[in-house]
Amino acid sequence: MSRDQPSLRSRYSTAYTLATRWADNDVYGHINNAAYYGLIDSAVNRFMIARAGIDIHAGPLIALVVETGCRYHSALEFPQEIEVALRVTRIGRTSVTWNAGLFTAPAAPDDTAAADAHFIHVLVDRNTRRPEPWPDPMRDALTEMIG
Amino acid sequence: MSRDQPSLRSRYSTAYTLATRWADNDVYGHINNAAYYGLIDSAVNRFMIARAGIDIHAGPLIALVVETGCRYHSALEFPQEIEVALRVTRIGRTSVTWNAGLFTAPAAPDDTAAADAHFIHVLVDRNTRRPEPWPDPMRDALTEMIG
Amino acid sequence: MSRDQPSLRSRYSTAYTLATRWADNDVYGHINNAAYYGLIDSAVNRFMIARAGIDIHAGPLIALVVETGCRYHSALEFPQEIEVALRVTRIGRTSVTWNAGLFTAPAAPDDTAAADAHFIHVLVDRNTRRPEPWPDPMRDALTEMIG
Amino acid sequence: MSRDQPSLRSRYSTAYTLATRWADNDVYGHINNAAYYGLIDSAVNRFMIARAGIDIHAGPLIALVVETGCRYHSALEFPQEIEVALRVTRIGRTSVTWNAGLFTAPAAPDDTAAADAHFIHVLVDRNTRRPEPWPDPMRDALTEMIG
Repeated sequence: MSRDQPSLRSRYSTAYTLATRWADNDVYGHINNAAYYGLIDSAVNRFMIARAGIDIHAGPLIALVVETGCRYHSALEFPQEIEVALRVTRIGRTSVTWNAGLFTAPAAPDDTAAADAHFIHVLVDRNTRRPEPWPDPMRDALTEMIG
Repeated sequence: MSRDQPSLRSRYSTAYTLATRWADNDVYGHINNAAYYGLIDSAVNRFMIARAGIDIHAGPLIALVVETGCRYHSALEFPQEIEVALRVTRIGRTSVTWNAGLFTAPAAPDDTAAADAHFIHVLVDRNTRRPEPWPDPMRDALTEMIG
Repeated sequence: MSRDQPSLRSRYSTAYTLATRWADNDVYGHINNAAYYGLIDSAVNRFMIARAGIDIHAGPLIALVVETGCRYHSALEFPQEIEVALRVTRIGRTSVTWNAGLFTAPAAPDDTAAADAHFIHVLVDRNTRRPEPWPDPMRDALTEMIG
Repeated sequence: MSRDQPSLRSRYSTAYTLATRWADNDVYGHINNAAYYGLIDSAVNRFMIARAGIDIHAGPLIALVVETGCRYHSALEFPQEIEVALRVTRIGRTSVTWNAGLFTAPAAPDDTAAADAHFIHVLVDRNTRRPEPWPDPMRDALTEMIG
């Protein structure tokens, strides 16, 4: 419903397919706006755990969210499955900016996103919560996602 | 952690595989007890929509929950995928009792459930919210799930 | 909608008033069954933090849920406020059983519960997750809730 | 943690106090980024129901979200209570832009927001989901929130 152009599925090389849930639908019958962020958060953290080596339980470095945003173009609804497609648009010394497109699964390359979002993560020390520079293996994993 | 015996995966013929989400994990690092119900609710409603012909948006008959319960045997956690295995244990004139076992996916036949739950649904008229007897096609779909 | 008698508000001496949220309502316009557990969990943990001395971030002892159950008598809905009324029905060496009644706020003494639930918590060591006996101050706090 | 200046509580004339929940805290011990949107959504909808005359169950006009965004300045956590402070920054023919500041309750006038968010709602026909101009009473209610 926003006037910005939805992104194309082909714009992203990586995606996570996530099941919607009964409770994602709100009174108006579609997935609630806040639930989109829960899906994106889950996809980004899957990446960070599996490919960037984040240990969410005991690792010394964790990634915290400092900014998020989403434009909703069209409705999604339970019981659809959703492809949360990800790419990195900027890597700073201690931060990373993600773009996420949400698509009805399975998505074709020229499908347009139902929603486009961004997430800015900052890497911090688990105890002090102060920003820390990306270790090389994490930076390398994120760099592969630039697109 | 409960003393009741966890069910075996082989006890169920139907299961839905659902992705966990970042927000399912609580401060203690495992999936929050309430999130289990959200997963089961999603699996049961997927069945009701796909196989019992419930139209959640506009159908004249809807299924409401009147009782739920769950025993938690062992922890589950994001980013695992979960198999929500379902069987029907009782069909009444206007109600149905579901048993659900939650398993780490992919589950082998002799895997034991991380949690065992039950759900009692009552079929009601969407407008009056008064109980209604199961139409034959719905009863047939539920009967196939008895096990 | 269950045939068991709903509890009376006067049956409980302690209650926490919690705001419902937009996303608690499901497609059918009422609070989703799983959301009730989230409300009860919040009330019980408020008690455990404020009155039983649980430190959810760093304390050596934490309370894990091993069994929950709920009977739903009548609907609740956003934007109502809910009184989650609590009492303890059994204290074991390492466990506690809570009964919770959910009432539309503000509730009068003879109001009947919209839902009646139970929660069984086991006290465990944060690291080993093995059951531990209640320290006296925690047991004393729980004992005051017996009713 | 963002470099933008957090808003002051005195910037807002209206606020809704909402209880946090156990499940809002994530593995890192603070309220999950997606949960902020759930709190804001609840505050905005409370306003729309109580003061702008929206009937979420049966009214012909409903407000859908087309864009959201949030900057997170400092952590919030269960069991705090949160003041979701609201003001309108723009009213279009069929849309409204909300700014929301989230504050630990009770907030003093010179307290700074833990998070600053915006929400853009579009008024639509419930059935066609096409944009509709604000009826005068709704526009008047929103106009009072400009600040």
